[in-house]
Amino acid sequence: MFNFTVTAKNGRARTGIFTTPHGDLITPVFAPVGTQATVKTLTPAQLEGIGTTLVLANTYHLYLRPGDRLIRDLGGLHRFMQWPKPLLTDSGGFQVFSLAQNRSVDDDGVTFKSHIDGSLHCFTPEHSIAVQENLGADIIMAFDECADPHDRAYIRVAMERTHRWAERCLRAKTRPDQALFAIVQGGVDPDLRAQSAQFIASLDTPGIAIGGLSVGETKAEMYATVDVVTAILPENKPRYLMGVGTPEDLIEGIARGVDIFDCVLPTRLARHHAAFSPQGRLNMMNAAFARDQRPIDDACDCYTCQNFSRAYIRHLIVAKEQLAGTLLSIHNLRALIRLMETMRSLIQAGTFIQHAPLLLEQWKGNAERNTIHTP
Amino acid sequence: MFNFTVTAKNGRARTGIFTTPHGDLITPVFAPVGTQATVKTLTPAQLEGIGTTLVLANTYHLYLRPGDRLIRDLGGLHRFMQWPKPLLTDSGGFQVFSLAQNRSVDDDGVTFKSHIDGSLHCFTPEHSIAVQENLGADIIMAFDECADPHDRAYIRVAMERTHRWAERCLRAKTRPDQALFAIVQGGVDPDLRAQSAQFIASLDTPGIAIGGLSVGETKAEMYATVDVVTAILPENKPRYLMGVGTPEDLIEGIARGVDIFDCVLPTRLARHHAAFSPQGRLNMMNAAFARDQRPIDDACDCYTCQNFSRAYIRHLIVAKEQLAGTLLSIHNLRALIRLMETMRSLIQAGTFIQHAPLLLEQWKGNAERNTIHTP
Repeated sequence: MFNFTVTAKNGRARTGIFTTPHGDLITPVFAPVGTQATVKTLTPAQLEGIGTTLVLANTYHLYLRPGDRLIRDLGGLHRFMQWPKPLLTDSGGFQVFSLAQNRSVDDDGVTFKSHIDGSLHCFTPEHSIAVQENLGADIIMAFDECADPHDRAYIRVAMERTHRWAERCLRAKTRPDQALFAIVQGGVDPDLRAQSAQFIASLDTPGIAIGGLSVGETKAEMYATVDVVTAILPENKPRYLMGVGTPEDLIEGIARGVDIFDCVLPTRLARHHAAFSPQGRLNMMNAAFARDQRPIDDACDCYTCQNFSRAYIRHLIVAKEQLAGTLLSIHNLRALIRLMETMRSLIQAGTFIQHAPLLLEQWKGNAERNTIHTP
Repeated sequence: MFNFTVTAKNGRARTGIFTTPHGDLITPVFAPVGTQATVKTLTPAQLEGIGTTLVLANTYHLYLRPGDRLIRDLGGLHRFMQWPKPLLTDSGGFQVFSLAQNRSVDDDGVTFKSHIDGSLHCFTPEHSIAVQENLGADIIMAFDECADPHDRAYIRVAMERTHRWAERCLRAKTRPDQALFAIVQGGVDPDLRAQSAQFIASLDTPGIAIGGLSVGETKAEMYATVDVVTAILPENKPRYLMGVGTPEDLIEGIARGVDIFDCVLPTRLARHHAAFSPQGRLNMMNAAFARDQRPIDDACDCYTCQNFSRAYIRHLIVAKEQLAGTLLSIHNLRALIRLMETMRSLIQAGTFIQHAPLLLEQWKGNAERNTIHTP
């Protein structure tokens, strides 16, 4: 049911097809984040209109509200949110460590208080899988522990626990129509990362994720870590770099052989009035745009750029109209999805390596770091 | 350029075609309100998808922000907000009287302070027309004074001033591609309304509006007033009942020969989690909907009802997701536009009068009064 075929390679960059019960994913692919079973401000029709193929939803949020059993009883997450294409859920681990209150971790799992109402909950690897089976995404993630990338002593503890938990997730999993990806941890330590990549690659999973990055390390550390990991991972499984990233990070990740990305950045920037553009990240509330008749990016094919002026978008922001967030989300997501389309074409033409420096130069003004990858 | 043809009659209800520079309006028609050059939460593509043909925008708001001259310099309101079909602007009068601070009225016009920043402004009939000519809508409104419907002494003063201002607006108007509608006032006094209807009908305008209703009078008073006015107005001009209304008001208005309506109710209710339905107005946050797999209205053809369950919409509301407002706006607007389509078909079939009581019965649960018709 889950098959990954590499269709072209250029250096370490590659294109591929990953088959899922809800259709084929052409990789490299960028997944918009639908935290609470909605990519903020957009309808599924608008998401399809910008070329979205994969959407990520957050297990932690949906477990707390409206509840994974409710979603199961209503036919699963695809039906609930009316997303007909592939879905991916994370394990809940990252949010438990970043959002929940009063958490305590041991080998069994994590006990935490809900950030919504303070109620007490416990996630174990088995429970995370059960919740994700109730949600019913095509790709589900092993429960892992993400530690501070510079706390070397604890990073090893968290990595080893992540490995034990990955094995428990594999044993707990029952649905044949879901692909479980195990997660490489190890902070920014090359030795730990190599050790983790080797262990995770030894497990029988249809895909592998790289976790614990874009959480406070430098860009150089992130890229070096991806380098170490992808050099070890098998060619025949898709590689998912979790919570990444900026346009620059996508280019650098693909150059290192990454196939799948997700990030809240495009929609979060939209809520903060920022737009990706070849001139760098634009603050659309800037008074300089008050009479600017141009689209955000005149080379962009999105609904926003095909129809609306910077002046109109600025007016919507100043007037506090929700349509501003919708139009900016459409543009920012389309910008990244279009960048992925461009890179896939270059890889297939065998010219990605040659063009990557130019792409990086074009997009560098959008490259400030997004250090928090989930709300 | 502006031609109105009655295409069918059934009792006093009628269908018609009003030609405008941006296409024909099939009447009776309901216009969603795009106060600040956007129908809140919706793209123009979504508006077209629900069958919208006419959109209203508010002169007072656009004059203050972003400014009518800016919109003129950017090619006019159609281009600014990317609405390709007919647009209507009000005169600004209603908002000056309901929203602005420290207003003072004399025969020349109204001096007021902006509700946004307290800055001082003056609207005269000539200025209102100049602003509306800058905006460039297909249908523009004479500057009028809307008084408390029960203050009989002042109602006469305001009505007579409205008549003098209507004549000044006609003289001030310069653009041949805009249809100026003059406005009947007179509170809920049948004699004053008759007098006003006769005067306004005597002016050379391509359409006539009925103002000063849905502002605190009873439904019986509103319907009786419309009765008096439409009995006097000429058959060959479209009649626009401003700021109305509820589904019940649309049915009652059409039965009395009204052709054009506008109201913020559908989008305002959407922001307050309410949905029109044949079971009456539904509060979609109600816990009873938590596991309800049905659409809001299983007879509705809108994108929301064709795709999403009540449970999903309730989840979006509880999770404070903006998509809730978008999906409810689509549904509520489509419900009224579909009701208009139904009534047009019944008028053309000659069976509207026969079916009107049934329609009223179906929609009565949605009929609570909306007493404030612009934000």
